[in-house]
Amino acid sequence: MSHYYRLVVSCPDRRGIVARVSGFIAGHEGSITEASQHSDLEAGRFFMRYEILADSIGMSASELTEAFDPVAREFDMEWALRDTRRRPKVVIMVSRESHCLVDLLYRWTAGELDCEIVGVISNHDDMRGLVEWHDLPYFHVPVQADDKEAAFAEVERQVEALEADVVVLARYMQILPPRLCQRYAGRVINIHHSFLPSFAGARPYHQAHSRGVKLIGATCHYVTEELDAGPIIEQDIHRVSHCHTPQDLVRFGRDVEKAVLARGLRWHLEDRVLIHGNKTVVFA
Amino acid sequence: MSHYYRLVVSCPDRRGIVARVSGFIAGHEGSITEASQHSDLEAGRFFMRYEILADSIGMSASELTEAFDPVAREFDMEWALRDTRRRPKVVIMVSRESHCLVDLLYRWTAGELDCEIVGVISNHDDMRGLVEWHDLPYFHVPVQADDKEAAFAEVERQVEALEADVVVLARYMQILPPRLCQRYAGRVINIHHSFLPSFAGARPYHQAHSRGVKLIGATCHYVTEELDAGPIIEQDIHRVSHCHTPQDLVRFGRDVEKAVLARGLRWHLEDRVLIHGNKTVVFA
Amino acid sequence: MSHYYRLVVSCPDRRGIVARVSGFIAGHEGSITEASQHSDLEAGRFFMRYEILADSIGMSASELTEAFDPVAREFDMEWALRDTRRRPKVVIMVSRESHCLVDLLYRWTAGELDCEIVGVISNHDDMRGLVEWHDLPYFHVPVQADDKEAAFAEVERQVEALEADVVVLARYMQILPPRLCQRYAGRVINIHHSFLPSFAGARPYHQAHSRGVKLIGATCHYVTEELDAGPIIEQDIHRVSHCHTPQDLVRFGRDVEKAVLARGLRWHLEDRVLIHGNKTVVFA
Amino acid sequence: MSHYYRLVVSCPDRRGIVARVSGFIAGHEGSITEASQHSDLEAGRFFMRYEILADSIGMSASELTEAFDPVAREFDMEWALRDTRRRPKVVIMVSRESHCLVDLLYRWTAGELDCEIVGVISNHDDMRGLVEWHDLPYFHVPVQADDKEAAFAEVERQVEALEADVVVLARYMQILPPRLCQRYAGRVINIHHSFLPSFAGARPYHQAHSRGVKLIGATCHYVTEELDAGPIIEQDIHRVSHCHTPQDLVRFGRDVEKAVLARGLRWHLEDRVLIHGNKTVVFA
Repeated sequence: MSHYYRLVVSCPDRRGIVARVSGFIAGHEGSITEASQHSDLEAGRFFMRYEILADSIGMSASELTEAFDPVAREFDMEWALRDTRRRPKVVIMVSRESHCLVDLLYRWTAGELDCEIVGVISNHDDMRGLVEWHDLPYFHVPVQADDKEAAFAEVERQVEALEADVVVLARYMQILPPRLCQRYAGRVINIHHSFLPSFAGARPYHQAHSRGVKLIGATCHYVTEELDAGPIIEQDIHRVSHCHTPQDLVRFGRDVEKAVLARGLRWHLEDRVLIHGNKTVVFA
Repeated sequence: MSHYYRLVVSCPDRRGIVARVSGFIAGHEGSITEASQHSDLEAGRFFMRYEILADSIGMSASELTEAFDPVAREFDMEWALRDTRRRPKVVIMVSRESHCLVDLLYRWTAGELDCEIVGVISNHDDMRGLVEWHDLPYFHVPVQADDKEAAFAEVERQVEALEADVVVLARYMQILPPRLCQRYAGRVINIHHSFLPSFAGARPYHQAHSRGVKLIGATCHYVTEELDAGPIIEQDIHRVSHCHTPQDLVRFGRDVEKAVLARGLRWHLEDRVLIHGNKTVVFA
Repeated sequence: MSHYYRLVVSCPDRRGIVARVSGFIAGHEGSITEASQHSDLEAGRFFMRYEILADSIGMSASELTEAFDPVAREFDMEWALRDTRRRPKVVIMVSRESHCLVDLLYRWTAGELDCEIVGVISNHDDMRGLVEWHDLPYFHVPVQADDKEAAFAEVERQVEALEADVVVLARYMQILPPRLCQRYAGRVINIHHSFLPSFAGARPYHQAHSRGVKLIGATCHYVTEELDAGPIIEQDIHRVSHCHTPQDLVRFGRDVEKAVLARGLRWHLEDRVLIHGNKTVVFA
Repeated sequence: MSHYYRLVVSCPDRRGIVARVSGFIAGHEGSITEASQHSDLEAGRFFMRYEILADSIGMSASELTEAFDPVAREFDMEWALRDTRRRPKVVIMVSRESHCLVDLLYRWTAGELDCEIVGVISNHDDMRGLVEWHDLPYFHVPVQADDKEAAFAEVERQVEALEADVVVLARYMQILPPRLCQRYAGRVINIHHSFLPSFAGARPYHQAHSRGVKLIGATCHYVTEELDAGPIIEQDIHRVSHCHTPQDLVRFGRDVEKAVLARGLRWHLEDRVLIHGNKTVVFA
């Protein structure tokens, strides 16, 4: 099967970037199978993503990276080049609600998520059977209210030992400490069960029911130190009415949450999400 | 053409309400063409709406009202009975954005809104031509920052003179004073250009753009003294992306706003919206 | 936990039905927690569904059924009364695509589907592990092109032995013979992977891609002898563009299919779907 | 205000196209503000659209066209370059339903449609007042069942006299003759009131009601000789239920139709729609 090099770039906007980059690729006989770019005229910043057929270019990823470096310097780029044969390692964290985990495991099995799931960490032991049935390691790391520090030190050890590229909070109901947020900035993806910025914090479906909204939602975002305030990757909603109890909202919400998280994670894994400040460019 | 009596009831929930009311209607040979009911188990409150073919029942609306009164007392009902031949009188208030007004006037002309539009009040003179082309009176009531009281006294006089049953704020960019909110409680319908409770207050599309949300919305609600916090009738959203400027959001928003306002107003005019506390039951 | 009697009625429309039925319930001190009705003015037919708190009424389901019988006769009703303690038995049939099966098993485990899944029948052996992990029996009934009759005789025996109330074709890629369609009329639910009536028959996503549509869909319907033409319970769509290959359509389609099938099945299990001719009334 | 050159290209896919085109633009100091491209791997065809700030490039549109011609030949391109100062001329055709016309006129007035509306042609005289109020010429061209040829000869004369770039069938209920379809191929945009390919032909909402579908839709497409079978630009849907009569479907449908037509037309006017065979690439 073909593999690809994905080149992702963010830099100050100016003339000639596309010409320079595409000229560089063409000069190495590279065949571009997918190209996206965006000029944020307000911020004066340019974003691009190229998918290049690896076999079309006579170089390894590291050779190509080295060859591209002068171009990147010339335009003051933040950039990355990834070989799709190197699949990102994903750790999933979960508490007691299993819907997102079940959904991610199905999609992974079905080939929808191009990654290696290297383990599941939970503050409860409930999902062990499910996870182990998928031949994945399960780490039960209880979080005691009076000693969260020890728990998160253990979490950090596991994430590090698993060499995770991405951590997915698939309805993990604990707040990550700042230290972890910083260390894995741009690599921890959370699903929040409301249409942010509405109903940040606890029990959003009950807040929504109490306010009498006619749509509920879910938000997939990168985790930052400020709770539920990181860059948004994806959102969606579900229509509700006066008929529905908070329990119904929870049920509808499960469907929205898992869909939104799966889309957000997929885009992240495919290098389609570029963070700029507190916002994202998503080349979906 | 047939006309109908619409019976709308809200009362403490208990056994036998439907039997009593439907028995009453059947006892008068009434033919029910549409029936909706809802038990709010949490609040212990019951809501119902009946549409009764007027010709099937040998009574005028006032006779039927009198006859039903003992039943209503028995169950401690808040209730209303309306003859659909008596079309509600609607005053539309607007500022400089015309999309909601144009939309409402089209729908009214097309027979989608069963009401009598009795006039348009604006703090600007821009829409006079459009309104007068529809053979409707236009009232230009400027609102000076230093004398809002006088302006709203004038607005109140006009609304009263026009005998308005409903006031629609179709992107009217002034805040109604508490006195008007109280006087017309449950009868003033506003369209707010965000998915409340997100982005209440001014310039919601710019707030939304700045937060980087992936969906924008609009909310149709009853006006109360607390800004953008009244009972919600209807909401909807439109998908946006990093490509879109605040101006694009404004443009998409116009479509959502007019659709949401039109649905909310239509339901109100058809007596489908029952207010309970700060929430609504909508028998759509 | 409370249980309920669900009364579902379809009959020629005339005055006094609601009064008679609700009067009957009230006369037995029954507490109605949910009520829906619909008059099809075109067809002259009336449909209703009541959910009655069983403890409020001093009778068993069979006593209530007997007591109601005269009312039913009086109005020439097709009707059923079901005690929610008697959970419907469901057989799922599946071929090689597992997404609907995985989704139904999750929802069932999470308590979203109020039924007893009594077994899974497949023409392949692929899903055995998954099904048996859920402690459910798995029946592999291969279908040979040259002896379908024998296969479906075996399917029929299994369905009968399992005493199935409902058969769900969760991407079962064989066409049921007329005999089975007739025997289980109104009790076999299929998910078709197109927005019917578009793209009936084989390979609908490839048909959709070839026609260049901008939305793809899925349809949950009752199976009748005519392929993909039975009464529709639910439909939904997903937006696509020129970017998407037939494989992308298949992937998006999986999400739509499982959502639509789950909603359709849930409504059927809750006695919310009434069939009339080739159409459905869905009290969702 | 800034103006732009829009370069739209379709050609056989091969390496180096982007490099060549973007290099050409960069070589002339051109500033690209928006860029889209698509490789149809199945068809082996490449599509692109560039929006270039005109002031950044020291040439008129015709000079740029001439300069680009050798590049275009080299890659066997079908292509066009348009100066956004040259606004397309649009003729709207309509019968008795006004919703699409009202909507397009509003959007045009609000600056959403970057075109010059040069006239409205109708087989009825009903919309004259509305159109003339917008200071636009109205042409009443009755179509007699026994002499359609004469009517369409007159339509053709008017369209030609108005020098129309685009003809919009905004619920024009006559079938255009093949001669017109051919002459204006790719320039006549129709709104069909169903989710094609379902319910092509007459009275689609009644067909939809009769089939009992749970979603209705509308389709914006280019007109070809084969009725309702041309390349689809955009589609959308609205949810319906057993409650809704064919008249309700017509009403909901109006909202979908006007939204879908407005989006399709806007994209066409912004050179975002590229036709290939019977499909479209839409750089929305």
